[in-house]
Amino acid sequence: MSRRSLHHPAPDSAVLRARLDRAREAAKGTGLLIAPGSDLRYLLGQAGGSFERLTTLVIPADGAPALVVPKLEAPGYADVPMDELGVDVITWVDGDDPYAAAAQRLGGSDRVAVSDFTPALHVLALREALPTAEQVLAGPIVRELRMRKDAAEVDALRKAGAAIDRVHARVAALLRAGRTEAEVGADIAAAIVEEGHAEADFVIVASGPNGASPHHDVSDRVIEGGDVVVVDIGGPLPEGYNSDSTRTYSVGEPRDADVAATYEVLRLAQQAAVDAVRPGVSAESIDAAAREVIEAAGFGEFFIHRTGHGIGLDVHEEPYIISGNELILEPGMAFSVEPGIYQPGRWGARIEDIVVVTEGGVESVNQRPHELAIV
Amino acid sequence: MSRRSLHHPAPDSAVLRARLDRAREAAKGTGLLIAPGSDLRYLLGQAGGSFERLTTLVIPADGAPALVVPKLEAPGYADVPMDELGVDVITWVDGDDPYAAAAQRLGGSDRVAVSDFTPALHVLALREALPTAEQVLAGPIVRELRMRKDAAEVDALRKAGAAIDRVHARVAALLRAGRTEAEVGADIAAAIVEEGHAEADFVIVASGPNGASPHHDVSDRVIEGGDVVVVDIGGPLPEGYNSDSTRTYSVGEPRDADVAATYEVLRLAQQAAVDAVRPGVSAESIDAAAREVIEAAGFGEFFIHRTGHGIGLDVHEEPYIISGNELILEPGMAFSVEPGIYQPGRWGARIEDIVVVTEGGVESVNQRPHELAIV
Repeated sequence: MSRRSLHHPAPDSAVLRARLDRAREAAKGTGLLIAPGSDLRYLLGQAGGSFERLTTLVIPADGAPALVVPKLEAPGYADVPMDELGVDVITWVDGDDPYAAAAQRLGGSDRVAVSDFTPALHVLALREALPTAEQVLAGPIVRELRMRKDAAEVDALRKAGAAIDRVHARVAALLRAGRTEAEVGADIAAAIVEEGHAEADFVIVASGPNGASPHHDVSDRVIEGGDVVVVDIGGPLPEGYNSDSTRTYSVGEPRDADVAATYEVLRLAQQAAVDAVRPGVSAESIDAAAREVIEAAGFGEFFIHRTGHGIGLDVHEEPYIISGNELILEPGMAFSVEPGIYQPGRWGARIEDIVVVTEGGVESVNQRPHELAIV
Repeated sequence: MSRRSLHHPAPDSAVLRARLDRAREAAKGTGLLIAPGSDLRYLLGQAGGSFERLTTLVIPADGAPALVVPKLEAPGYADVPMDELGVDVITWVDGDDPYAAAAQRLGGSDRVAVSDFTPALHVLALREALPTAEQVLAGPIVRELRMRKDAAEVDALRKAGAAIDRVHARVAALLRAGRTEAEVGADIAAAIVEEGHAEADFVIVASGPNGASPHHDVSDRVIEGGDVVVVDIGGPLPEGYNSDSTRTYSVGEPRDADVAATYEVLRLAQQAAVDAVRPGVSAESIDAAAREVIEAAGFGEFFIHRTGHGIGLDVHEEPYIISGNELILEPGMAFSVEPGIYQPGRWGARIEDIVVVTEGGVESVNQRPHELAIV
C-alpha cells in the first residue's frame, strides 16, 4: 500500500463551493469528470492520489456533484467538507464497476469532459461506459477558472515567491569552483525544503556550456572558475502553489568576454517584458516585448523558447506567454517572464520572475536582484 | 522552465533492444505509442519528463521505432543510445503538429495502443490524428513483458529491498511517545534518501486508531505509549526500481490486550502466503493462503484489502495478488505480500515483504524480522 505523503492545507469551503458552481456554469451543459491532480485540488482542496483505481469528481450538468473513489482511498479525502460543498461520496471496492457508477451519476449529457491528465486507462474505460457521449477535454473549461487567481491564490504565489527568493539568497554560498552541478543541486534541493516548500520539484544548475541547454537539469560536470551558471529552481508550497525562479550566476569573473554585454541585453529584455504587463494587453505582446530587445541587439537566434508560462497549482499552466497567444491579460493572471540567451557550447543566461497582473499593472512575487551575480 | 531532477542509470543497449523487439512482437500488428513514464523507462532506459507537450515513443508494426519529442526536451534523452537501439528521433517545435508526426510514423495500423498513463490531453488528440484506428491500451501488452523481470531487474529489487531494510532498522530510534506521526515521518523520509533512494515516495506512520485505516499516511497525532504503529515506506532507487516494506511497531507494551495474539495470526498468515509462492500456482492462491489463516482465526472481516501488488519500475503493477486473478506465477514475477488486520477505532497491523518468484520457489528481498517490534 502506498501514497505520496503531503499535507494539504485547503481554502475554506465557501471558496471551494464557488469554484464548483463556476465550473458547472463554465461547462455549459457538458458533464465534467475531474481526475486526481491539480484540477481536483482546485475544486475540492485536495489533489488526491493517482493510483490505478478510478477516482473522479463527477460534476453533472444537473444535480449534485459526486466523488467516485475507492473505499480504501476515501479516508484521504476526510478533510474535504463534502457536506458543505454539496458533494456526495460514492465509494467502490474491487469487483464494482466505478465507470458505470460515474456514468450513471453524470446522467444523460451528450458531451463529457475529462480532465486533461486523466490516464488513458480511465479515458478509454469511461468512453466505453458512455458510448453515446462525445468525449472532450475539461482543461479548456477548468483553465478559464484557474487562470484567474483569487486573492488567496495570489497570496499563496507571493508566499512561494518569497520562499524561493530565500533559496536564491543562499545559492552564492553553495556555488563553488570544484563542486559538481549535482552536489550544488542537492544542497539547493535541501534548501528548497528548508525554506518551506513541500518538495523540491526541479533544480536546474547549468554551468558553462550546459547553460546553453535550457532544459539541462544537473550533471556531474565540475564547476570551474569563470563559469556562468543558470540556476532555475522551484517547487510547491504545502498549500499547493508553486515557485519558479531563475537567476544567473558567475563563478568569479566570467570566462567569456561577451558575457557582460550580452547579459545586460537579457536584463533589459526581461525588464521590458515585465514592464509591458498590464490588464488589456495580449499574452503574445509580453513575449514580443522581450524578444524585440533581444533581436534588436542581434541575439534573436539565441532566444530559443517562449517567454513564459502560467503558474499556480501547476508549474506550467495557462496563460502561455508565446507568439500567437492573443489571450487578453486580466487581473489575477500569473505567469513567468523568463527570456534567455543561449550561446551554444559556451554559456547561457536566463532571468525568471513570476508576475501577477494587477488592476493597476503588474506585481512581481520575486524580489532578488537581476544583475549577474558574481560569486 | 522546469523538469524533475533525477539521475537515470539505464540498462545496457542490448537489454533495451531486446525489450523493444519483444514489445513489437507482443503487439501483434498493433502500433504502440508509449508516453513518458515507467513503460518508456523500461523500453528506452529513460522515463522522460511529463510536460504538456507530446513526447511519445512510436513503435510501428513495421519499420523502425521513433521518439517524437519536443526539441527543447530532446537533450533529456541524450543518454539513450538511439542508434544502437535503432530508434529515430523526431523533434518538434511549437507550431508543428506532433500528433500528425506520430500518426505518420505509425503507418496504417488499424489498432493503436496508447500507454495506460498517457494523459487524456494526448489520448484525444491522437484519436483525432488517427480517426480510422481503434484506440486501445498498451498496458496489457507492455505488462506481459514488465511482469517477468530479468536478472538485472531482480538485482535492482534486491538492492531496493536492502535499502528499505536499512531504513526500518533505524525506525526504532525515531518512534517515540510524544512525537507526532508527521515528525517521525519526516525523519523516515530523510532516512529513505540517506539509504540510497532517489526520493521518499511514500511514508505511512499510522499510530493507534490511525493504524486501522490502511491508506492513512501521516498526521499530527501525537504518538502515545502503548500505541501500535504501522510503518509502510518506500521509494525508487536511482535505477528506477522501487522498495515497499511494512513493519508494525509497538511503543512499549501494546495498550490493547488483543494485540499479541492477533498479531501472531497476521505473522503466520503472511508467512503462509510467502511459503505458498512458487512457479505454477495462481496469483489468487497466494491471496487465499493468507486469507485462510486470518479467516480461520476469526479475523476475516478485518482483512479488508488484497494481499499484494506487483512492483518494479512502478510501485503498483502486475501481478496483483487478489481473489479472481488466475494468472499463473512464473520465475521473475515480483510482488508484495502484505496482509493486514485492522481493528476499527483501536489499532491495525500489517506485514509486507517484496518477494520474487524463483525457479525453485520464492526469494524475499526484505530481511527484517516479522515479529511485532517493541520500541
